[in-house]
Order: sequence, then C-alpha cells, then structure tokens
Amino acid sequence: MIHRIDAGPRMSEATIHNGIVYLAGQVAEDGGADIEGQTRQVLAAIDALLAQVESDKTRILRAQIFLADIADFPGMNRVWDAWVVPGKAPARATVEAKLARPDWKVEIVVTAAI
Amino acid sequence: MIHRIDAGPRMSEATIHNGIVYLAGQVAEDGGADIEGQTRQVLAAIDALLAQVESDKTRILRAQIFLADIADFPGMNRVWDAWVVPGKAPARATVEAKLARPDWKVEIVVTAAI
Amino acid sequence: MIHRIDAGPRMSEATIHNGIVYLAGQVAEDGGADIEGQTRQVLAAIDALLAQVESDKTRILRAQIFLADIADFPGMNRVWDAWVVPGKAPARATVEAKLARPDWKVEIVVTAAI
Repeated sequence: MIHRIDAGPRMSEATIHNGIVYLAGQVAEDGGADIEGQTRQVLAAIDALLAQVESDKTRILRAQIFLADIADFPGMNRVWDAWVVPGKAPARATVEAKLARPDWKVEIVVTAAI
Repeated sequence: MIHRIDAGPRMSEATIHNGIVYLAGQVAEDGGADIEGQTRQVLAAIDALLAQVESDKTRILRAQIFLADIADFPGMNRVWDAWVVPGKAPARATVEAKLARPDWKVEIVVTAAI
Repeated sequence: MIHRIDAGPRMSEATIHNGIVYLAGQVAEDGGADIEGQTRQVLAAIDALLAQVESDKTRILRAQIFLADIADFPGMNRVWDAWVVPGKAPARATVEAKLARPDWKVEIVVTAAI
C-alpha cells in the first residue's frame, strides 16, 4: 500500500510506504525572502508534512539539500542548526544546483521514518 | 537478499531489497533528441525496468530529476504530465545539473515500491 | 527505532532504520588530493561507515555521485571500477554539482542494506 499527501496531477507532496515517508523537494512559498527566511519556510513545510504522518524532525533519515548558490551554505546552516534536535540529526548532503524558479535559493528533499 | 537488474562491472540498472526497487539514473539512448524526446525515452526506460520487477509508474515513491538546463523544465513537464497517472504521482524534486555526457538533457532517478 | 553514527549537532554520518543505512554525503579528508585520491578517500570513508553496521560495499543499493567538475568522470570511474565488486554493483547516478568546499571534487551519498 502507498499513501500520498496532496496527490496532484504532477506530483504528490509525500508518499508513504512501509513505515517510510518520502517528501517532495520543499521550497519557500515566498521566493523574495533571503536564505535564512527561505530555509525557515522550507523547514516549516517539512515539519508540517511530517506532522501529517505523525512523524517529526527527530525521525528524518536523510536530508538532501540543494542550494542555488553554495555561498548560502553558512546562512542555511544557521537556520538548520537552530532547528535540528541535537543527537537526532539526520544524515545530510548539500550541493549547489539551480532550482526550478530563479528566486528559490534552497530546496530540501527529506526521507523520514514514521 | 539483494537482487539486481543488469549487474555490470560499474553499476546495476536496479537493485531490489525488501520490497523496494532503486533504479540507476536513467538517461536517453538517443542524445540527439530534444527535451521532449529525451524525457519520453527516459520514462520508457523507467517503465521497462519497473515492469521487470512487476512494479509500475503508479508505485513510484520518489523521482529525482536532473536537467542539464533548467530552462527545459516546461518541456520535461509536458511529457511527464502526460505520463504520470493522476492520483498516483510520486514525490518529486527537480534541479539543474550537468550530466555525464554533454548531449544528455535529463536524468531521472526513481525509487519505487514493488 | 533509529540508530545513528557520529550524531553531531548538525548531522549524523549515518542513520540506520529497518535494515537500511543512510549515509551522509562523504567527501575527502584531504581536499588537496586529485580526483583519484579524493575518490579513494571517499570510498574508504564509505567502507568504514558500512563496516560499523556490519554491512559492506556489496550491499549498497544506490550511490548518488556529485562531481564538482563533470570532466572528472573518467578519473572517478577509474577508482570506482577498481573498488566495486563485479556482480554486486549498486544502482548509481552521477551529475555535476559544486560542493560545500571549493577544494572538494567528489561527494558520494550511499544507501545500503545491512
């Protein structure tokens, strides 16, 4: 069985199978925000999606982070470090990649246990 | 137990473990095709690999899409949107990244349930 | 239950859940090494982390490889091909992406069965 959250015609915001939730890449609602603001919005979106499946940030297995400009690495990390729960941090990888909209600065793809 | 499809000396086209199939990044056979043609070829390759493990596109959990030029986002989406089954779309993330061969325009990495 | 290896304040080097280990993106310790040297260091780090959970390179399900310069594809492959066990190679995808430190040439993100 596969469950889905916000199953649209192009993608679902999340799929759930066998105790794992696979989130779609999350981006900021407000592309005008700076890297800290966008990271805050992305992490809030992740929190909200995980809450829908009764998971939370302490149960993230891996986060793949894409930054449109790798120079935003310190700014993203300032917000990330304040958000993550010490001792419960996921495996993580961060690379630079241009995103689908030019005003997006960060996209995060999360896999979590339920 | 891990099963593999087309296990070569460098990589396998897919690995299967505990009800999940992990596909290798799929690219076009004909690098001369435009973005729509390449996307069609990539999705056909994904269909064929999923069929080998009795899965199909309605059981994809996540698709990670890499476009050599993010300007091809609309062209890729035209083919993707016609291919995906409404209500059964996977979680998805799309970013720009140069690919291993300069003529490749799109590479898609799929994780699916069997 | 989620187990973690080297759980720091920002990330863990690996998370383990339900028979799968999710490694963080691995990079070279010595950023001054060339692509072959850095690939060797990255693969050694992967070997060491997998050994900690009694897994090994024959049980990798997928490797996502990021190269800061896709021109390093042949050099990375020379080391990779000598490392992988024929018949036991994982699914793989390789794309170009700038990495968090400018001297890093390759980052590999591994998912493996235990």
